[in-house]
Amino acid sequence: MALTNPMPMGPWKLTVYDQENFQGKRVEFTSACQNIMECGMDTARSLKVECGAWVGYEHSSFCGQQFILERGDYPRWESWSGSNAYHIERLMSFRPICSANHKESKITVFERENFIGHQWEITDDYPSLNAMGWSCNEIGSMQVQSGAWVCYQYPGYRGYQYIMECDHHGGEYKHYREWGSHAQTFQVQSLRRVQQ
Amino acid sequence: MALTNPMPMGPWKLTVYDQENFQGKRVEFTSACQNIMECGMDTARSLKVECGAWVGYEHSSFCGQQFILERGDYPRWESWSGSNAYHIERLMSFRPICSANHKESKITVFERENFIGHQWEITDDYPSLNAMGWSCNEIGSMQVQSGAWVCYQYPGYRGYQYIMECDHHGGEYKHYREWGSHAQTFQVQSLRRVQQ
Repeated sequence: MALTNPMPMGPWKLTVYDQENFQGKRVEFTSACQNIMECGMDTARSLKVECGAWVGYEHSSFCGQQFILERGDYPRWESWSGSNAYHIERLMSFRPICSANHKESKITVFERENFIGHQWEITDDYPSLNAMGWSCNEIGSMQVQSGAWVCYQYPGYRGYQYIMECDHHGGEYKHYREWGSHAQTFQVQSLRRVQQ
Repeated sequence: MALTNPMPMGPWKLTVYDQENFQGKRVEFTSACQNIMECGMDTARSLKVECGAWVGYEHSSFCGQQFILERGDYPRWESWSGSNAYHIERLMSFRPICSANHKESKITVFERENFIGHQWEITDDYPSLNAMGWSCNEIGSMQVQSGAWVCYQYPGYRGYQYIMECDHHGGEYKHYREWGSHAQTFQVQSLRRVQQ
């Protein structure tokens, strides 16, 4: 069963299964899905990203926890989830990350909200911001100049994930409230480019 | 309480707590700890890496699941664990990763065991090997020319972790049985440099 976008925006393909380990009913997507229940499935419990980078969400309409999905196989929730304390066993909406550009990504991070305080322009992946001289465990605000980024609560790309894109919010994320509906603190300890 | 290494090998510092959220008894390490129970603690449930990159292990004597620990705060097991299906709530041994070198790291991955088949020399971080043209979800063997690397079971740096170092095994990892005592398959879908 294929739900083909009549006007595809890019080379994206995601196959979703309603059971773990690529079992059960399956649906293919080549563009955003706002609510998987409107596509003939109750839930997404495993998935294969065949083309492009995607973001999956806990709830419909792109709300709740965000999960970066790059090319490869995701047989169970543990393969996408970063927060085990509050784990999400299924995904309800998805969309392609159109601005992902592994080679040319740039983000400026600021010590405080509203682009104030000490700042740092980043073009590479940093599993520990702390190790590279960022003195605290928080980022106050961010400006994405190009590409798309994933920020993580903990070092080593763990914990809550926040997808930051140059073509969303004009690339400006002034306060953690703009990072996503699940963000509750400024805590960010690692960050990396999204791979297309 | 500080357990200072009489002959420190590098600028490493790790503080371990026996309760979550940096509570309870604490011990500082500046070099490897083979068994935390011999250092006056029963368990490690939270930790702060203040200097250098470390690897933490599920069991004593550097056995069982491996967890990369770079600079930053790790308040609970979820902040270091990548496999939620088989989660490890405490760590029992630690050691510094002496060869970590974020700027100059090189690894060659091979399609099949014993350094056979299609090969690829890697010097950058890859959240999805698949996306970069590696055609399967497995790596047969690896040779670390410089630096230290973390390989992960799933894309996006999730799932089981395997630390690969140029100064261990002569940098040669011929078969998954040499990746660590917890390795059970050749499955590797993402890989990155360890940051010092």
